[in-house]
Amino acid sequence: MLEPLFAPSVQHTLDLIGIFVFAISGALLAVRKNFDVFGIAVLAEVTALGGGLFRDLIIGAVPPAAFTDLGYFVTPLLAALLIVFLHPQVERIQLGVNVFDAAGLGLFCVTGTTKAYDHGLGLTQSATLGLATAVGGGVLRDVLANEVPSLLRWDRDLYAVPAMVGATMVVLCIRYDALTPFTSSLAAITAFVLRLLAMRYHWRAPRAWNRRSTVREE
Amino acid sequence: MLEPLFAPSVQHTLDLIGIFVFAISGALLAVRKNFDVFGIAVLAEVTALGGGLFRDLIIGAVPPAAFTDLGYFVTPLLAALLIVFLHPQVERIQLGVNVFDAAGLGLFCVTGTTKAYDHGLGLTQSATLGLATAVGGGVLRDVLANEVPSLLRWDRDLYAVPAMVGATMVVLCIRYDALTPFTSSLAAITAFVLRLLAMRYHWRAPRAWNRRSTVREE
Amino acid sequence: MLEPLFAPSVQHTLDLIGIFVFAISGALLAVRKNFDVFGIAVLAEVTALGGGLFRDLIIGAVPPAAFTDLGYFVTPLLAALLIVFLHPQVERIQLGVNVFDAAGLGLFCVTGTTKAYDHGLGLTQSATLGLATAVGGGVLRDVLANEVPSLLRWDRDLYAVPAMVGATMVVLCIRYDALTPFTSSLAAITAFVLRLLAMRYHWRAPRAWNRRSTVREE
Repeated sequence: MLEPLFAPSVQHTLDLIGIFVFAISGALLAVRKNFDVFGIAVLAEVTALGGGLFRDLIIGAVPPAAFTDLGYFVTPLLAALLIVFLHPQVERIQLGVNVFDAAGLGLFCVTGTTKAYDHGLGLTQSATLGLATAVGGGVLRDVLANEVPSLLRWDRDLYAVPAMVGATMVVLCIRYDALTPFTSSLAAITAFVLRLLAMRYHWRAPRAWNRRSTVREE
Repeated sequence: MLEPLFAPSVQHTLDLIGIFVFAISGALLAVRKNFDVFGIAVLAEVTALGGGLFRDLIIGAVPPAAFTDLGYFVTPLLAALLIVFLHPQVERIQLGVNVFDAAGLGLFCVTGTTKAYDHGLGLTQSATLGLATAVGGGVLRDVLANEVPSLLRWDRDLYAVPAMVGATMVVLCIRYDALTPFTSSLAAITAFVLRLLAMRYHWRAPRAWNRRSTVREE
Repeated sequence: MLEPLFAPSVQHTLDLIGIFVFAISGALLAVRKNFDVFGIAVLAEVTALGGGLFRDLIIGAVPPAAFTDLGYFVTPLLAALLIVFLHPQVERIQLGVNVFDAAGLGLFCVTGTTKAYDHGLGLTQSATLGLATAVGGGVLRDVLANEVPSLLRWDRDLYAVPAMVGATMVVLCIRYDALTPFTSSLAAITAFVLRLLAMRYHWRAPRAWNRRSTVREE
């Protein structure tokens, strides 16, 4: 069992911030897809809580935190409400949303990895589940909105790699017994900054060998 | 632990009716999408059992009822068989199907909520999970059929709200120690009638503020 | 508790072969959809491990084997790497891939059924879960790639039926106390050969009564 990285109240606040910014991204997609207010709320909830829900089902932590902590459930509703009334303004500050989403990504890959390790998974598996926690909500969001998950698309800026780097840093710290609030914050910040850089410079992952952009996407 | 609301055999019969009508809606969509008979059976099973399966995974009731009670598994197959041979007739009585589907919605939001509360979830979470039980199968059906879930679309009559009202009535009854076969039947019937009214008068939920129908759906 | 069918090392090798060939099919679809290398790796993992993950969640075997056995996790990555560099060659030997995929189908329906029975499910439910183990990864693959699952489409050669036959043979052997390495191999081989025949002779399942091919697929 790892020592708690942060004071529980700090951890909880960080979680709620991550949930809020992911919920914003879900609600915005729902508005773009022309869903009604319930669709907006559902997509906000799924985006914010889906990754953690998947993690908790895998490690057998049922009922999942999303269904035991009322704050986890209410926060996405507040985000949805905000977007229902303010979506033109929020879209105009899309950059700000992306920055918050990057912060959520950094945070979730760290907390997901440590929680998985706490439940007895190996180091590689913990990092994988941390990655899944960070990106899972976005994948569910896109599947429900009937779109190809942006995680998988070659024409989107790098998203998985920053989370992979953050999760890897955490398991290396665990391996060498160096996981402290400082090092785990460093891992989260590294993932956060890498994601910001990927957006700023449009870093993209290569596709399969010999695959040129002349190949039309189906 | 709540007292069982109904005699077990009554409860079981109600469950099977709910499963049957949801399976009909899944099988009909499969026919419209031109799936083969196995696709029809799969979509019937997923629509009928998906919501309860999700609920059971969340509350840790594994193996889920869908995999322990043979009747739950066979009923959707019968519905699929019926639709394979009689789909033109059933489509003609679409109204009847919708009425049964509304009955399933009312029933599942009540039983889902009480089962979640029985497994130790809080009141708000129990209502949420009851809602998810009622609408989850339909969402899975639409995802597998590669369509935008009709739950999320603004151009469909209200579906989530009746289930939310029913689930809320149940948790209020639990809160004030008034959950009896009578009050829970009342909750199911309220959800059922609200859904019928929503279909009859084409009640729809609003979309995001400033979102006009001139905005084309992507 | 059933006796282990094969020596553990034999069983494990067979599992890894099944995982590898399913991962190939996921990675190939990802290349066709023009995903980047991370998308290819994700789709390979999901296709290879999705069916077993679903089975383990249903029977409550958490954390699932996919997250405890490092070989299960690494094998799809190797398959993805292979496809990234060699996809034109592999597509040319599509027949070979299909043969391996059929082998994975036969194998997974047998191991999925026996594992489900070992965890206390009834015979029918065990066969159903064995079928879900065999086809589940492919369904998840198609959902993530935003395509109608080929399992459900009438214009694809039979896929579910061979797995159903294999799983049914296994539960009949269990029922009559005749499950041995020989009979379970026979079940896997029967499923394998049936799938090969279905591909060779383009066996297809019927659609709903009165449904003609003049009906355009939506």
